[in-house]
Amino acid sequence: MRVWQTAEGEMAERRFAASALRQFAAAALEKKGVPAERARAVAEILVEGDLLGQTTHGLQLLTPYLESIDAGGMLLQGEPEVVADRGGTFAWDGRYLPGAWLVLKAMDEAIRRIPDHGVVTATLRRTHHIGALQAYLRRATDRGLVMILTSSDPREESVAPHGGTVARYSPNPLAFGAPTTGEPILIDISMSTTTNGMVGRRHREGRPFDHPWLQDAQGQPTTDAGVRFADPKGAILPLGGPSLGHKGFALGIIVEVLTSALGGLGRAERPTAWGGNVFLQLLDPEAFGGRAAFIRETGFFADFCRETPVPIGAPAVRLPGDGALARHAEQSAHGVRLYPGIEEALAGWAEKLGVPMPTPRA
Amino acid sequence: MRVWQTAEGEMAERRFAASALRQFAAAALEKKGVPAERARAVAEILVEGDLLGQTTHGLQLLTPYLESIDAGGMLLQGEPEVVADRGGTFAWDGRYLPGAWLVLKAMDEAIRRIPDHGVVTATLRRTHHIGALQAYLRRATDRGLVMILTSSDPREESVAPHGGTVARYSPNPLAFGAPTTGEPILIDISMSTTTNGMVGRRHREGRPFDHPWLQDAQGQPTTDAGVRFADPKGAILPLGGPSLGHKGFALGIIVEVLTSALGGLGRAERPTAWGGNVFLQLLDPEAFGGRAAFIRETGFFADFCRETPVPIGAPAVRLPGDGALARHAEQSAHGVRLYPGIEEALAGWAEKLGVPMPTPRA
Repeated sequence: MRVWQTAEGEMAERRFAASALRQFAAAALEKKGVPAERARAVAEILVEGDLLGQTTHGLQLLTPYLESIDAGGMLLQGEPEVVADRGGTFAWDGRYLPGAWLVLKAMDEAIRRIPDHGVVTATLRRTHHIGALQAYLRRATDRGLVMILTSSDPREESVAPHGGTVARYSPNPLAFGAPTTGEPILIDISMSTTTNGMVGRRHREGRPFDHPWLQDAQGQPTTDAGVRFADPKGAILPLGGPSLGHKGFALGIIVEVLTSALGGLGRAERPTAWGGNVFLQLLDPEAFGGRAAFIRETGFFADFCRETPVPIGAPAVRLPGDGALARHAEQSAHGVRLYPGIEEALAGWAEKLGVPMPTPRA
Repeated sequence: MRVWQTAEGEMAERRFAASALRQFAAAALEKKGVPAERARAVAEILVEGDLLGQTTHGLQLLTPYLESIDAGGMLLQGEPEVVADRGGTFAWDGRYLPGAWLVLKAMDEAIRRIPDHGVVTATLRRTHHIGALQAYLRRATDRGLVMILTSSDPREESVAPHGGTVARYSPNPLAFGAPTTGEPILIDISMSTTTNGMVGRRHREGRPFDHPWLQDAQGQPTTDAGVRFADPKGAILPLGGPSLGHKGFALGIIVEVLTSALGGLGRAERPTAWGGNVFLQLLDPEAFGGRAAFIRETGFFADFCRETPVPIGAPAVRLPGDGALARHAEQSAHGVRLYPGIEEALAGWAEKLGVPMPTPRA
């Protein structure tokens, strides 16, 4: 297969229509017993991940999702349990129902309540995996809302506390969306130097990181993703690394608290299933300084930053989401390129499940 | 004067009772026309900063505050203007009233509303400077609440966007407090590598940073705080530095959006007065998974992290706030040590304003 070099590695040159990929993923999930609406939600969020260029959190995840269903790790039927509800706040226990479906359902609920409350805050504990957080943001920013979405996996221990040599918590991504006068700001960053998905990929491909983002079991910084698969295991470092890792650790704790502690179920329970605890908040600028003032400020700030002088020959300053939105637009128009290995995995499921494999675009 | 070496530099060995320092600062502010209750609020927060060891954000600030009053930069009388109010949300225009007094007033209001709403969110635009964010957190955590407090100064441009060579925004501190089964978690970190206060101090003292946390006007990383005072000026780097500065930049943007854009007034207005835009949110675990579950999780996680193995001879892992609370307890019992230069500055104001200088403890 011919490949295409990008910042993240080599991408297949072959392209698939996003709609065909969505249809395929939904059909595969349905074959495994996922009700149609839920299958469509998961498929939508996975393909959105690939469209945005989040290739470790797109259709790469379809295989582990399908395997998790086989292993009984995803609940397919039934509703989330309402743990608490005060109107502007609600807390659900997701019982490992499909993660993307739960988050989209909670977003719909929060959007419905926004006019009455100005801010709506929700915790969803025990969702199945929710995919790329960035994939949810535009549903809020398109309505003029600010969205905070963050998650942790209380089963996962891959990041070491600052100064420690053993991993204790998960990379803890934080996503944040805000409308502007132009394209929205779409932030999606882990509170660690890198993610589990990227460590796994680098390890499989035998490619060290460009910077020492991990440490071995003795606490020595390293570029080698393999330390996570050694015995004893190394760990991913918090954002900030050896000199400012106390800040990344603090940010990781904020995510732990908002997701697991606020939701009421986390590491203290030693859960063993793959899944996540989620914190979701929508904020309506109309309840504060007003929508017009809001986008005036975000638009001004975005342009002010984009126009910052850069060193001679260096690329212009980009706002978070600029690259992802450009990839999304390009791939929506010309088709999605899949990261190497994904097409082969999809073809395997097509054969096994009797679902027609999407035809590449001409 | 004999000095005492700490992580932050040399501290005076002489100690003052915190109550005497509070009384002095309040009296000095009252002499300048600040109403008594407001003067007490500012004095309390400044001395709380010193007690916690935030020596750039304690009584070091009294001089610039008093000078700002002389220059007409702080409004002394009158109330904040209510921009919007929906019960669970409110937005005030602080009109450059004393910052600590405004934040404490907003906290009182939010605490009063918490039983009805579960989460209360407020923006305060155009406050005067608010001091150390960490100084406010225990008022919330003592009540079992989670608190998020963050601020930006839309006049200040000291941090460069990732990849740019010119400073465009402020260090943007983010504070976060959460109760546990033991001492609370008290986070207070800037979204940049270091702060304006620390850059000013290092520059005055001719001490380079231990790490290249700034860059010169050409974008070359440097440990020299002097680049911020050169022509053309250098800039502070976002948290994450050259390799992961896009994350620190993203975090800085989150603070900009929550403070200035949500409050409805920011850099687009090119304000010229010293002050801040503030975002404040209280969250009650009772509205989600419950208070008992909350502190079970935070307590477990805090201990789990503190007990992480460390390299031989290295200090134990600390949770954010552990050091600050130990300093607070020690200095509350034995008196506050002031960073060199502060006692002399206070003595100058004592003489000028006819306010008795506090007597050092025996």
